Amino acid sequence: VTGAMQARKRYDFEDLELDQEASYTRACTDADIVAFADVTGDRNPVHLDAAYAATTPFKTPISHGMLTAGYISAVFGMHLPGPGAIYVSQTLNFRAPVRHGDQVTASVRVIDLIPAKRRARFACLCKVGDTVVLEGEAILMVPARTSA
Amino acid sequence: VTGAMQARKRYDFEDLELDQEASYTRACTDADIVAFADVTGDRNPVHLDAAYAATTPFKTPISHGMLTAGYISAVFGMHLPGPGAIYVSQTLNFRAPVRHGDQVTASVRVIDLIPAKRRARFACLCKVGDTVVLEGEAILMVPARTSA
Repeated sequence: VTGAMQARKRYDFEDLELDQEASYTRACTDADIVAFADVTGDRNPVHLDAAYAATTPFKTPISHGMLTAGYISAVFGMHLPGPGAIYVSQTLNFRAPVRHGDQVTASVRVIDLIPAKRRARFACLCKVGDTVVLEGEAILMVPARTSA
Repeated sequence: VTGAMQARKRYDFEDLELDQEASYTRACTDADIVAFADVTGDRNPVHLDAAYAATTPFKTPISHGMLTAGYISAVFGMHLPGPGAIYVSQTLNFRAPVRHGDQVTASVRVIDLIPAKRRARFACLCKVGDTVVLEGEAILMVPARTSA
């Protein structure tokens, strides 16, 4: 975990602008994948068992797609909009596998602002190097400046 | 984790039928939420800090939406279709908060089968008691009986 993930800065709805961006990079370690399997109960051997994975098209164990999706959640919860924002929806299109040890960069960008409902729509992208591994869109409800 | 999550039974594409269902129930513990925060980097205080949560509309800390989504992934990876299936896409509509200690039941149901691409579409639902907390749809690519 990067030290940059400590801050509690947050953007109120009024602070958001189209094309604002934030990102977070994290290596997807063996230990993270085992911990994610433990915490969700998803012990699919494609993620955990090298001998099993060798029989699949991926040949080596891959990370859980929902762990990669968790990095998107981390950008929202920690950076943009930051604490207080409420997840309304998320679409996830898995484009390529994430392998153990890969450095994943999750990025989000404001693509629409709906003031009447204080909702913001984001384009979401996760990459390993130049390869897009996950893309989708999210809607968050963001507190107004006057609220708690 | 329930003992039922040990099996490696899997459904090949040819074994799938419309309306087949599977589910998985898990209590979302404090320890799970802390572990999910560690493994994703999402330390949003709405999930972890009771004093902060008291200032939000939810009043008490809530679980990460993507942790609940992980239970859907667990049903796919462990039960239906089981090991070998590849996640193509998932939509997630967050309907209500999951609080620390809530028992969450994640259910998936086959709603469409596309033989040419060996893809199966699933309706996905997570409930706490009678309350829908998360719903969406997923597409998985499922190995044919003749493949590895």
